[in-house]
Parts: sequence; C-alpha cells; structure tokens
Amino acid sequence: MNIAILFGGSSFEHEISIVSAITMKKVLKKSQISYLFLDKDRNFYLIEEKSMNSKLFSSGEYKKSKTIQLKQGSFSVDALFGSKDISVDVVLNLIHGRDGEDGKIASLMEFYGLPFISPRIEASVLSYNKLYTKLYAESVAVKSVPYQHLSKNDNRELTLEYPVIIKPVRLGSSIGVSIVKSADDLEYALDVAFEFDTDLIIEPFIDGVKEYNLAGCKSNSWELSIIEEPQKEEFLDFAKKYMDFSRDSQVHQADIDPNLQAKISESFQKIYDPLFLGSIIRCDFFVIDGEVFLNEINPIPGSMANYLFDDFEAMLERLALNLPKEKKIQIDYQYIHSIQSAKGKA
Amino acid sequence: MNIAILFGGSSFEHEISIVSAITMKKVLKKSQISYLFLDKDRNFYLIEEKSMNSKLFSSGEYKKSKTIQLKQGSFSVDALFGSKDISVDVVLNLIHGRDGEDGKIASLMEFYGLPFISPRIEASVLSYNKLYTKLYAESVAVKSVPYQHLSKNDNRELTLEYPVIIKPVRLGSSIGVSIVKSADDLEYALDVAFEFDTDLIIEPFIDGVKEYNLAGCKSNSWELSIIEEPQKEEFLDFAKKYMDFSRDSQVHQADIDPNLQAKISESFQKIYDPLFLGSIIRCDFFVIDGEVFLNEINPIPGSMANYLFDDFEAMLERLALNLPKEKKIQIDYQYIHSIQSAKGKA
Repeated sequence: MNIAILFGGSSFEHEISIVSAITMKKVLKKSQISYLFLDKDRNFYLIEEKSMNSKLFSSGEYKKSKTIQLKQGSFSVDALFGSKDISVDVVLNLIHGRDGEDGKIASLMEFYGLPFISPRIEASVLSYNKLYTKLYAESVAVKSVPYQHLSKNDNRELTLEYPVIIKPVRLGSSIGVSIVKSADDLEYALDVAFEFDTDLIIEPFIDGVKEYNLAGCKSNSWELSIIEEPQKEEFLDFAKKYMDFSRDSQVHQADIDPNLQAKISESFQKIYDPLFLGSIIRCDFFVIDGEVFLNEINPIPGSMANYLFDDFEAMLERLALNLPKEKKIQIDYQYIHSIQSAKGKA
Repeated sequence: MNIAILFGGSSFEHEISIVSAITMKKVLKKSQISYLFLDKDRNFYLIEEKSMNSKLFSSGEYKKSKTIQLKQGSFSVDALFGSKDISVDVVLNLIHGRDGEDGKIASLMEFYGLPFISPRIEASVLSYNKLYTKLYAESVAVKSVPYQHLSKNDNRELTLEYPVIIKPVRLGSSIGVSIVKSADDLEYALDVAFEFDTDLIIEPFIDGVKEYNLAGCKSNSWELSIIEEPQKEEFLDFAKKYMDFSRDSQVHQADIDPNLQAKISESFQKIYDPLFLGSIIRCDFFVIDGEVFLNEINPIPGSMANYLFDDFEAMLERLALNLPKEKKIQIDYQYIHSIQSAKGKA
C-alpha cells in the first residue's frame, strides 16, 4: 500500500509531528511511504526517505526538497518541465495541533478528493477544542470531569476548589497547561495559558487519579487497542515528551478487572462512532470510584499510539480500505432551468 | 476595495449560491468584484462580470472560463505562459451548504492565508450542524426549541407530540424538511430526510409561531440589522425560494416592542461573539410567550441578508478591515536542538 505521511504544520506541535513521522518510518515496514512535509509557512515538500531525520528540518535543509501542490485528486510534485503526481492509496494525517487537528487538513483532503486517515472536519473541531469535547461527550452520554470555562476578557474568578489544572482549550501535548495549588499561583498560570489561547478550561486536579488510555478505530469492525495505564508525572520534560512521541514497541495491558475494561471500551465506542469514522484516535479516561470519565480525546495521538496495537500496520491497511465516502451530490441545474422557463413564460 | 466572491460549490445549494452571487452584483456598486466560481467537481473558474448570468452555469459554458489555482497568499489564474495573481483585498464566501458552510472554504482560506468574510472553522461546524448548534446555544445561555435527535440506525420512535418538523442536521434552504401532522406520515418524512443526511433533528412544529430574523456582524463595533418578521409559508416553491435568495432592496423593521427587540439583539450577540467574528450571519428566532428561542443560525445567509441593512456595502468594507487575525506561531526547532544536544552528550 502507498501511504503518504503528512507531518509538520503551522503548529506549536510542529517539532513533535516530525518526531512522530520519523517513528512511523520504523513502524510501517511493509508499506511504500511518501513523506510530505508541511513547513511553518504552509508549503509542502516531498522528503526522501533516506533524508528523514530531525536535522534536515531544524537546519532548514528541507527547503532544497521538491515542492508539492495540491490538485483535484492528487499531490503534484513540481518539476522543471510540468509536474508529476505522487502515488497515494491513503494519506495519513500526522500533523499534531493546529492545521492537523483543527479541521484544516481534513478539509483540504475532502476538498481535493484524497482518501485520508484522520478525524473528519466535525470530529476535528469537536476534539481539538476541549470545551466542545465536553459538550459533545455529554451529548453521547459519556461523562467528563466537571469544569469551568474562562475567556480572555472574563473576570478571573475561580468557582472550583484548589488544586486545579488549567488548560488552553485548543492545544495538545501539555502546552500551556499548569497545575495550580493555591490562589497565589493562579494569576501567573492564567497568564501563561492565555499566551496560547483565548479560552481555557479549568478542572479539579485529582492527585493520583487512575488514568487509562485506549486507542482504536472502526474499519470493517471494531479495532480496539489494549488499555494502558500511562506513567504519571506532574510535568514532562523534553526528553520524556520525546520518548512519548517516539514510542514504537508494544506496551502491556493494564491490570484492571474485566468489568472496568468493558466500561472503558463502551465509552470509547460511544465517543468514536460515527463521528470519528476514518480516524485512529486515543481516548484518555479517568476512573474515579469505579466510574469512567473522559479526560481527553487525542484525535491524532503521538506516533498514532502504534505501541498500543499488536499489528498497527495491518490495522492501518484495513482502515484505509474502509474509509467513509463523501456523498455524491447531483447538480443538474433543474432549479435554474425552472426559473428560466418561468421567466420565459412571463 | 477588491472583493472576490466565491460561489457555487459541491452542495445541494449550488444553484442558490449562483443566484446569491448574481444578486451581489446589484448590491455591491462601488467595489471591484472578481467572481470565483467553484463548480460541482471543485474546480475554480474566474467568471467575467459581463457573463454573470444563470445560463452560463446551467449550460456548462462556464468551463470555457479561465481556471484558478489556490496558492499561498493568492488565487492564481492559469495562463498559457505562467500564471497571474488575482488582486483580492477580501474574499466573500457565498457558497451555501456543503463546502461553504461546513468549514472547508474557511479552512482553505486560513490555510492559504487569504483574508475572508465567512464563519471560521469552528463557527462553521457548530452552525452547519443543527444538532451542534443546539449544544453551542445552550453553552452560551441562549435557549433553543426542544428537540429529538435521530440517527439513521436508531429506532424510529418519536418522543414528541404531533405536529413535528423534521430537519436533516446538515442542510439549509429547507432541503429535506417536512412537517409531519400524524403518525401516518412519519415514515415517509423520515425516509425523505435520511436521503439527505445520516442525522436528523425533530422539533415540535408550532403553527403560527412568531418568527424574527436579525443579521449582523462585529466590525470595529456591533453592526446589527433591522429585525424582520419574515413572511411564513409552510412550503416555499421554487419561485418563492428564488425571490428569497435574490432580494436586494431593504425591508421594513418588524413592529415589536423595544423590550423584545433588546432580547433578540442580546441573544444574537451571545451567539455571535467571539465564535462568529469575521462573518455576517443571520439568526432566526422564535418568540413564545415573550421568550426568545434560537431557531437557526444561517452562517451564510441568502444574498448575505443584504436587504436587512441600510448600507450593506459600507458595512462589508468595515468588516473587511476588522477581520480576526491568525496567531503567528514561532517555530525555532528549540525542542529538536535540545534532543540533538542531549543525544550528543550521551
């Protein structure tokens, strides 16, 4: 299968996306891969497999690569004489954060008619924005943690008790996130978060809460990963974050009872189906007193959460063969013809 | 001001969009206008002003026009030798329904860095889908009519009393909408609606309910239209629909008391700010026992609801000068540099 990996983007997670893409090189062993890099100015470049290392991007060397244009039905490589289409069976959207997760890449792929693995436009908007995720989860009867929403111009009055966790609504990878333990630290944490976004959500910070991650998709049938209990640290430094986005070997199933496991799977399925068809997502859940709460949806998880699956590559192929199809709309100008003939009669 | 009007699209409302664009030709008298037509196969064409009539499109003659490509920062007209950029101060998105209202055009404009008048991506998704509109309205404390949500595979059991109105969640211009007065007519109406969408909302149909429309935007300050009490008909035939999308002369303010007027304006502002910044929308409200309910958001109203404004063209220019700006994200590869130097030390 010819897979085009889209990575980079005009995003705070641009660099992390490069790490994810390099990881995919190790994970996807049987596929033909084209690496399509979206730089910070939103120009596309075709990167040769042998050049796929982080230095190519940090040094700016990538600019010597061939540029790509989007056309109806294809990515087209600019050449001295004319242009050439890239063979693509499916595009894997691996752009974390803005562009990749906010609906832009999904829109471009739908607009230009390219088959793609990624949340679609609605799914992107509802998962990229943590406030809308809350509204959506409630509408499909999945509980989420109680919260307070704060906009830039709102009065900075907290209605929750300390400690709290403050998150910009539109960012991933813990960017701009703070845990605030007392009123003294509130102003600073809000200032930091508002550097990144106009809107925040504030949630109670529950020290030592049980967290479980489940990833998956629905191809011709449900494909759910093992459930992982992630290692918890209050703050991840860059080395640990790097580890997180470059994981490529399978982890172990968390030691939880089948009843809880079923509840987590059920919550995942309620969130996923049908909104997220066509994508592989990871949901992070909290378990409090045996009850399951959605913490976050990762619409494009780091390295696609490949490490949670037994055979990630085979699943990717099955999903690629079972993507949602856009409804064809017939346009026959019947309406305009009617107006014209009505006018003709008048 | 150089205004590029985008119209057409792969949408059930393709033809209505053509009518809206032709109407704009009459409304925008002082501006330089470029007409950019998106055909059903999603190819862009530059239409000459003198050719802007419905027959050009229904006959397929438009295909002889110059084609356009989207590039970073411009629409580029294909020419025999090289290509030429179109001068654009602002793009007016006039594509009704799919492509224009679902977030695709907003995504394309943001991606390619073109200033544009239209709901942004989040605003598009939350207004294009009537179910999400309900969730959003609730979150900003605007009441909407009670409803039942029905998916294609759900049990077709009604929890509301007759008569009800059935609407596909993702369509405008009354497409697929039925009023159902008794159980006998339910199955057929559901079949019709499911022809257009996978999801429906069902609401109580309130015969003779008072309806009021208000359009507006926020440029450097609030710009609210007069409030219109639209003519009501159970069904609009094509001639009436055509009238509706080709209106170009101002209508009269509805005769309502200042208190109700203030409530309607306040609801509009809660819906609009900040989600819809950069767009001109029309909100349709119901008034029941003196209480205001949001019926629908028209993210790209027919002929931009120009007929509700005193000087539509001047407002459009003010809005064009006050569009939301995309936040610049600095990408300096600090993170990758750190990993590289950490690896170097190891």
